Amino acid sequence: MNDFSPLKSSPDFNSLFAGFTPLASEMVPLAMARGRVLASEVVSAELLPPFSRSTMDGYAVRAADTCGCSGLEAAHLTVIGAIAMGDSAQELSLQPGQAARIATGGALPELADAVVMVEVTRHQETGAVEICRPVAPGENIIHAGEDYAHGAVVLSRGSRLRPQDLGVLSGLGITSVPVYRRPRVAILSTGDELVPADQTPSPGKIRDINSTTLAALVEEAGGIAIAHGICGDDFDRLLKVCTKAMEEADVLLLSGGSSRGQRDFTHQVFAAIPQGQMLSHGVSVRPGKPAILARQGNKSLFGLPGPAASAMVIFYCFVRPLLRHYAGLGATLGLSSVRAVTAQPFPSAIGREEYVRVSLSPQEDGALPLATAVYGKSGLLSPLVRADGLLPIGQETEGLGRGIEVSVLLFP
Amino acid sequence: MNDFSPLKSSPDFNSLFAGFTPLASEMVPLAMARGRVLASEVVSAELLPPFSRSTMDGYAVRAADTCGCSGLEAAHLTVIGAIAMGDSAQELSLQPGQAARIATGGALPELADAVVMVEVTRHQETGAVEICRPVAPGENIIHAGEDYAHGAVVLSRGSRLRPQDLGVLSGLGITSVPVYRRPRVAILSTGDELVPADQTPSPGKIRDINSTTLAALVEEAGGIAIAHGICGDDFDRLLKVCTKAMEEADVLLLSGGSSRGQRDFTHQVFAAIPQGQMLSHGVSVRPGKPAILARQGNKSLFGLPGPAASAMVIFYCFVRPLLRHYAGLGATLGLSSVRAVTAQPFPSAIGREEYVRVSLSPQEDGALPLATAVYGKSGLLSPLVRADGLLPIGQETEGLGRGIEVSVLLFP
Repeated sequence: MNDFSPLKSSPDFNSLFAGFTPLASEMVPLAMARGRVLASEVVSAELLPPFSRSTMDGYAVRAADTCGCSGLEAAHLTVIGAIAMGDSAQELSLQPGQAARIATGGALPELADAVVMVEVTRHQETGAVEICRPVAPGENIIHAGEDYAHGAVVLSRGSRLRPQDLGVLSGLGITSVPVYRRPRVAILSTGDELVPADQTPSPGKIRDINSTTLAALVEEAGGIAIAHGICGDDFDRLLKVCTKAMEEADVLLLSGGSSRGQRDFTHQVFAAIPQGQMLSHGVSVRPGKPAILARQGNKSLFGLPGPAASAMVIFYCFVRPLLRHYAGLGATLGLSSVRAVTAQPFPSAIGREEYVRVSLSPQEDGALPLATAVYGKSGLLSPLVRADGLLPIGQETEGLGRGIEVSVLLFP
Repeated sequence: MNDFSPLKSSPDFNSLFAGFTPLASEMVPLAMARGRVLASEVVSAELLPPFSRSTMDGYAVRAADTCGCSGLEAAHLTVIGAIAMGDSAQELSLQPGQAARIATGGALPELADAVVMVEVTRHQETGAVEICRPVAPGENIIHAGEDYAHGAVVLSRGSRLRPQDLGVLSGLGITSVPVYRRPRVAILSTGDELVPADQTPSPGKIRDINSTTLAALVEEAGGIAIAHGICGDDFDRLLKVCTKAMEEADVLLLSGGSSRGQRDFTHQVFAAIPQGQMLSHGVSVRPGKPAILARQGNKSLFGLPGPAASAMVIFYCFVRPLLRHYAGLGATLGLSSVRAVTAQPFPSAIGREEYVRVSLSPQEDGALPLATAVYGKSGLLSPLVRADGLLPIGQETEGLGRGIEVSVLLFP
């Protein structure tokens, strides 16, 4: 039982991810594409906007005709027509001394090169208009192709699609896009003591918590959670369930059974999976040390610790970056962080990364929030519920003093 | 056409939200509850964990029996049984001098008050065990109810449910929870120039962009987007479509037609909606000034500017806080922000809040990122695509200099 490779440090563990590649792409309609990652560059096949548009209600003019005009000495132009929003301006062409009424968003007539806003004009009953302020060429206009020229790169491969990006795509008439597939993540809890959340545990048993927590963590990270329930601590059964789960999943999260005790089948099971290859057993992170990583081709298998707090830290530090890597986002944590000040000393041992659960309390006068440790055994849930995020303490650091400025990773 | 109330400042506009109340609650299963907000307090109806558990593989003991022991002078205890994970320990009761083998997560026998980890014990063939290090009462144990006692408040009303919160609920056997209903948001674009994204616009027409952008913004903010497509600039038709949309929606977002030009039916339509009541026309924010807010009972109607950048700023500043208020999250922006340094001066007029689109470039040596303005007409989309977030400039501020530390709101 002592045939484990030495504990890996967190950077070592993450470097194992380089061996995995992002998932294949799939076409999705824009309405489903928010937060997804483009699997190829998008190039504009047309001009956006397709024609020069007015950004004001007013008069399309030739700017030269307004040169030097003022309220006292207005330029008099002949109004030859009106362009409402949505009208084609193709039949209109401005000759010197002419203007056309135009609405915001209206298409500019031929030979017009500026728009005068209506507020600085005086409409004449005679069909003329007085212009009381000069405009420069291009003023109050968006030119055809000013947003995107024909052939312009609109979005690069690897872009995470935000609402405005989807808007641009719809503006270009692109209604579905190739994005990296979302990783399918099979979730399995192991332990003879576990019963499903909807059952009343008999003496000695407890309800399965990790299935619920991990499914929510996976979905939050952009994956698709596939529930596989609970499997007892039985090698043959675990091997069968895991092998089956890997047929449809890209990732397996097996929680429990990964400490060094007598029931640690996880690493044996992963090693016995067809084409299974152990990558690491154990990582020098606290809480969470017993984290196992194996691969099956481009698929990955994680053995997570059973205690909820440990499973969650390992998820954030290792599973989440790999899920993001699969989805084309890069193997990063992808968590927001805030600057805070330690409200107390945070002791920590050298040679081991530590992730301390902390709560944040706002301070007055714009001072940084105070980070207070929410200590508690890793098997307890209440400290996680009270915490706002994790304070990472590097493995070269022998703890932190009180009043130190730090960066706290926020739970999403 | 000049019967508008004066422009409201952003705090005035937000104070209008106080008149709206969070939506009714609904029961949802845990698997659907991530990110939702609890509509009532959750109290534990049982002990969690339900029994005292070992956090180690080892031996359950009476701590007093290990007092003063060491590797040289071990304590000898009689092993009276073994408790595996999931076993009931009800039939075992430790007398002085007795121990029981126990697995991590195992239920503690009667009268045991600590666990000795297996690494500091020596198993004897005789059925005894040698203990080489003393333990204190409570060591390596999670006590029954240590997480949550009977009747303890687990989560308060208004809590946003995170993965760990859902985990605790499943641990307590609570498989569905009362949460505030997600706001249903009807989205309608108005403008005679608009065609749907899947059509090729004829001359003078452009594709509808706001429907796509706003739907994604709504979903990102936790709402349910209901697409109502495009409606031409026609009072009767707009009134009919809006009235119908409000039958099933909590919020209406009508974009376009809210400038002061000739086709501005939005405020007339909102005022004509049955039980409609105008709250504000115009807010002193740039870009986005023409933002209209009306109510119909507890429902709200927003008139948003047509240009994409303006619509988006108004969404983030005003619609998003109201959606969050409806969902029980409080009328806050709910956007992450980062500290940055201005890469250039940011001129701004006093008396008007400004939200400048900025891109952020990382700096070396841990310096704050540089915020550079991504200027562009509000009708252009490409500046929004290039931007990482918004730099708010308060209405009392006459612009910002170069090299000033600022807080940038990140696009989610």
